[in-house]
Amino acid sequence: MKKGSRNTITDVAGVKIGHVTLYDKLSDRDTVCTGVTAILPHTGNIFEEKVRAASFVLNGFGKTAGLVQVNELGMLESPIMLTNTFSVAAVLQGTMEWMLEENPEIGDSTSSLNIVVGECNDSHLNSMRLMAVKPEHAREAIKKADTDFAQGAVGAGKGMICYGVKGGIGSASRLAEDGDLSYTVGALLLTNFGRKGEFRGADFSGADPKKPDGSVMMILATDAPLESRQLERLAKRAAIGLGRTGTTVHNGSGDIVIAFSTAAKISHRAEGAFSSDWLLRDSHPIMSELFGAAVEATEEAVYQSIRHAETTEGRLGRVVEKGEF
Amino acid sequence: MKKGSRNTITDVAGVKIGHVTLYDKLSDRDTVCTGVTAILPHTGNIFEEKVRAASFVLNGFGKTAGLVQVNELGMLESPIMLTNTFSVAAVLQGTMEWMLEENPEIGDSTSSLNIVVGECNDSHLNSMRLMAVKPEHAREAIKKADTDFAQGAVGAGKGMICYGVKGGIGSASRLAEDGDLSYTVGALLLTNFGRKGEFRGADFSGADPKKPDGSVMMILATDAPLESRQLERLAKRAAIGLGRTGTTVHNGSGDIVIAFSTAAKISHRAEGAFSSDWLLRDSHPIMSELFGAAVEATEEAVYQSIRHAETTEGRLGRVVEKGEF
Amino acid sequence: MKKGSRNTITDVAGVKIGHVTLYDKLSDRDTVCTGVTAILPHTGNIFEEKVRAASFVLNGFGKTAGLVQVNELGMLESPIMLTNTFSVAAVLQGTMEWMLEENPEIGDSTSSLNIVVGECNDSHLNSMRLMAVKPEHAREAIKKADTDFAQGAVGAGKGMICYGVKGGIGSASRLAEDGDLSYTVGALLLTNFGRKGEFRGADFSGADPKKPDGSVMMILATDAPLESRQLERLAKRAAIGLGRTGTTVHNGSGDIVIAFSTAAKISHRAEGAFSSDWLLRDSHPIMSELFGAAVEATEEAVYQSIRHAETTEGRLGRVVEKGEF
Amino acid sequence: MKKGSRNTITDVAGVKIGHVTLYDKLSDRDTVCTGVTAILPHTGNIFEEKVRAASFVLNGFGKTAGLVQVNELGMLESPIMLTNTFSVAAVLQGTMEWMLEENPEIGDSTSSLNIVVGECNDSHLNSMRLMAVKPEHAREAIKKADTDFAQGAVGAGKGMICYGVKGGIGSASRLAEDGDLSYTVGALLLTNFGRKGEFRGADFSGADPKKPDGSVMMILATDAPLESRQLERLAKRAAIGLGRTGTTVHNGSGDIVIAFSTAAKISHRAEGAFSSDWLLRDSHPIMSELFGAAVEATEEAVYQSIRHAETTEGRLGRVVEKGEF
Repeated sequence: MKKGSRNTITDVAGVKIGHVTLYDKLSDRDTVCTGVTAILPHTGNIFEEKVRAASFVLNGFGKTAGLVQVNELGMLESPIMLTNTFSVAAVLQGTMEWMLEENPEIGDSTSSLNIVVGECNDSHLNSMRLMAVKPEHAREAIKKADTDFAQGAVGAGKGMICYGVKGGIGSASRLAEDGDLSYTVGALLLTNFGRKGEFRGADFSGADPKKPDGSVMMILATDAPLESRQLERLAKRAAIGLGRTGTTVHNGSGDIVIAFSTAAKISHRAEGAFSSDWLLRDSHPIMSELFGAAVEATEEAVYQSIRHAETTEGRLGRVVEKGEF
Repeated sequence: MKKGSRNTITDVAGVKIGHVTLYDKLSDRDTVCTGVTAILPHTGNIFEEKVRAASFVLNGFGKTAGLVQVNELGMLESPIMLTNTFSVAAVLQGTMEWMLEENPEIGDSTSSLNIVVGECNDSHLNSMRLMAVKPEHAREAIKKADTDFAQGAVGAGKGMICYGVKGGIGSASRLAEDGDLSYTVGALLLTNFGRKGEFRGADFSGADPKKPDGSVMMILATDAPLESRQLERLAKRAAIGLGRTGTTVHNGSGDIVIAFSTAAKISHRAEGAFSSDWLLRDSHPIMSELFGAAVEATEEAVYQSIRHAETTEGRLGRVVEKGEF
Repeated sequence: MKKGSRNTITDVAGVKIGHVTLYDKLSDRDTVCTGVTAILPHTGNIFEEKVRAASFVLNGFGKTAGLVQVNELGMLESPIMLTNTFSVAAVLQGTMEWMLEENPEIGDSTSSLNIVVGECNDSHLNSMRLMAVKPEHAREAIKKADTDFAQGAVGAGKGMICYGVKGGIGSASRLAEDGDLSYTVGALLLTNFGRKGEFRGADFSGADPKKPDGSVMMILATDAPLESRQLERLAKRAAIGLGRTGTTVHNGSGDIVIAFSTAAKISHRAEGAFSSDWLLRDSHPIMSELFGAAVEATEEAVYQSIRHAETTEGRLGRVVEKGEF
Repeated sequence: MKKGSRNTITDVAGVKIGHVTLYDKLSDRDTVCTGVTAILPHTGNIFEEKVRAASFVLNGFGKTAGLVQVNELGMLESPIMLTNTFSVAAVLQGTMEWMLEENPEIGDSTSSLNIVVGECNDSHLNSMRLMAVKPEHAREAIKKADTDFAQGAVGAGKGMICYGVKGGIGSASRLAEDGDLSYTVGALLLTNFGRKGEFRGADFSGADPKKPDGSVMMILATDAPLESRQLERLAKRAAIGLGRTGTTVHNGSGDIVIAFSTAAKISHRAEGAFSSDWLLRDSHPIMSELFGAAVEATEEAVYQSIRHAETTEGRLGRVVEKGEF
């Protein structure tokens, strides 16, 4: 399938990505090697103009916050934030503080606020117990968000490991086309999963077979007009793309997909009882093209996370090598 | 059905409840009127000795953290913490800090940690945007946990409203009996739901019809040996008990049930490949007794939350009256 | 809340109900005491003009066929058929034969066909092993469908038992109103659940405490423009209404809700890629009114099923009494 | 990973497979080209000795019957039957008749009976509207069940198409090993999915690009002692194996996984309140080995279904070629 012009998730118009990367060798024992990544579905006020969303949990050994409400209402009203396992609270706090500033009426009149934060465990390289990520790093990642963004060992991906080599942030996009219709599906992954020898793209001889199981956060964006039920269908296809890279989805992995559509902005301030929407029919051939785009973009995003990542030294002098392929 | 000796959730042996209540009239405008409540499934190291658990989302307009992993693994490895909507991050942070101190190997070797935090929106009475709850309050609530505990406008329930009158923390218990078998089901609720006029227990003439919709967190504990699939079945029965009090489960309400069993402690440090368990058969008559106990305990816990709550003044001089019935 | 003009599910315009009742005392041992009930969402070609639908399984000890596709696509493309447990296959067969006749291209070109059949176990009164329901009875029930229909011990309800007294088919409706908006929610139940003494509406002194646990099929119809995600939310409220009548949802009960909306007809023959719909916003106040209507209509449908049912003699000379209240 | 001695699902001790294949060229227009396949979890009385089971719906455009109860109770109490889309009713009927004969008390005393029937749409080759499968064919397939069984264009697979070439029944097995532990995971698939050009195993130049989307039923058996929650986890891994063969899981495909464990037989006639079980810990390394075995066995079962299938002529003179690779 055709790729978008950037071959990243920001080929979906409006989507922006921001990173804060923390790296500090504190001692022979401790190294801060972690960060935060923000995925903005659009550059307006996300609480005021929500987008449709859904999730799929492939393997729920993970701590992602905010999915209960996404699943019930089929909507996303915050950036999607990614970080390490022990920093979910700090990132949730920082994102909330920023959104409360942007929206003075939340919590003063009756509104509440649902924030989505995903995570992987980077404790092999990162001194995760030090909790170096602070609330202000979440705010900073949001403010840095741009259509151009780095991949590999950056942001939340700084300390992540994929198939025994250095992983992190990877992204790709594909076009779903049928007749005059053309939509983009973009994937952004935080890769921290897989064992040496499982990778189907290459033989990572330098990989450490004893690296722990990890997780993978998979974010799909599309400009196709899909309702949340259809976005859940799209999200399931990320599992197919992930599986093609070799993993069998280990017990200890939190493999979670969140998909959103930028096609409609759902105003928080309802004017009238109805929303009027153009939605794709499930039976139209482009639906399967969208599914294919999700599979391919997810698969390539895994490869991109490895290709862009550099050899990284973390705590206890541990080094995770770049995976050449 | 028979009640337990205390008629609270702590009739399930080992369960303890701790509150931190924050109340401070800062100005004519702002009042801190909130808190934290901790539910401990047992008094040992919960991470080291996990308990079986499951959840049921009756209405997912809520921000509860930690359910993804509970659902996947069928286990709870932290206290269940309750607070207000904007304090989920602070309570998550404080609980994590406490558990990391108690368990130095988490995040140093390979373990991660899943913490469950539920919430309701107390912003009618509480100046929720001030985020008065701090991480140390979570720790304090855990440390205060005891088999004797207050109900009503305490802990996370300090600022909550139920059916237009003062709600908060309510608890009750019932015995499920069949032949020689006897198990306890205890419920603890954080009640913040319902509109005036819906309440079936009384006519709350003093209630304010304009009070916003809210939410309800429902925690069920039992000593019956149930696996997570069975605990999910039990959790669904809380919806029946809740409904009997009058609510029709409004759109804006986060109505979430978490059920756990204290019958088995699942060691984090696996010795061998197998766990050997006695589990109740679904087909045994006591299963329906357990379901009945969950219904009755949940229903009465709503009443208890109102009966124990006192008239409370909150922000902007707002007063929520005690509901007499 | 206000009732519809008929106070049945056919207050939702277009909905029709048809029954075939089978009753034959064959011997001292065997009595045929069963039937089929058809719920038509509209009177056109349902396969050609599908309606949005969703389901909620309160307790899945049941054999309802067809829910997998309803859940995936959010649509209903057949009548909803109700019968006894051992007649699901016959009714599925008969409904399929009828629909294949009506739609010659299904299975010839590429279309398949999903038929929904729900059931309860009437083997206390009905010699269910004789499988007296034949495929033609399904067809007959569909053809008899009308806006006027009988309740009580008719159709699929002929042999059902509710709270130890005679149950069967019950129906009710409520109007959800807000400002200029007015929608109808109708419920039709096949009641075969509950134990003597649980009923909250009366003390059924004549009820037999040894009657087996059963099941309840709950069908909700509405003319409100809801998508499938919202219909699932509506379906969950049927559990609240059911619970108010007294049951605690026993282990052996198949308690299943199917909700559909007649507001949009989704053409099987897609013209173009898009459907354009007016859908209710979740945040509009009428949503909670709809939830309330579902609760009240379901609760009253239980009562109606008992009020309309007559004392019935079944196999082995067993008699189930009318429940007076 | 190592294969079992037969490299089929019957490497899981006790599992047997039976086929009835129907083939009859009736006219230039019509050909019967279909069948029934029975998967027996063991050769005893399955109703009396149930096995643990779970399902996962990858794409729910399918009509599988019986999953509601499997999901609620975590048990399978019938053979798993496979056939074409329009024969679900006949096969359900035939299997029920056989089981009622074997178990005279079902439906006479209080028991009900849940039968699982899966399907794919073989209407490209098979005159599916003729409904040539009769109830007795289900019974016959069950009686023929053996540890040795044919693959390819047999049984329910007679008319199926995979990646534009002839598909049908395929099976494979893998051993999950860790230290002294060794368990078998077997897969049996009914393959009727995928488009020409998607297949990753070869370039099927002879395949017809216009072949309709189809479905795939995926049955996993294991002798590992897993509870239903764990079996659902195993079932999800079949999606990974399926995806590796090339499909992106099209809109119109019913892709459904059912997994069962033969490790424990759960007696219908409960003696006492408890079951005592040895269950694998999720955290034991063999769990990920089981997941890997499910992935590999599913992937190879797709290939086997193609390798064993022969070029087949169906209705309207249509021929689907053998896929050589």
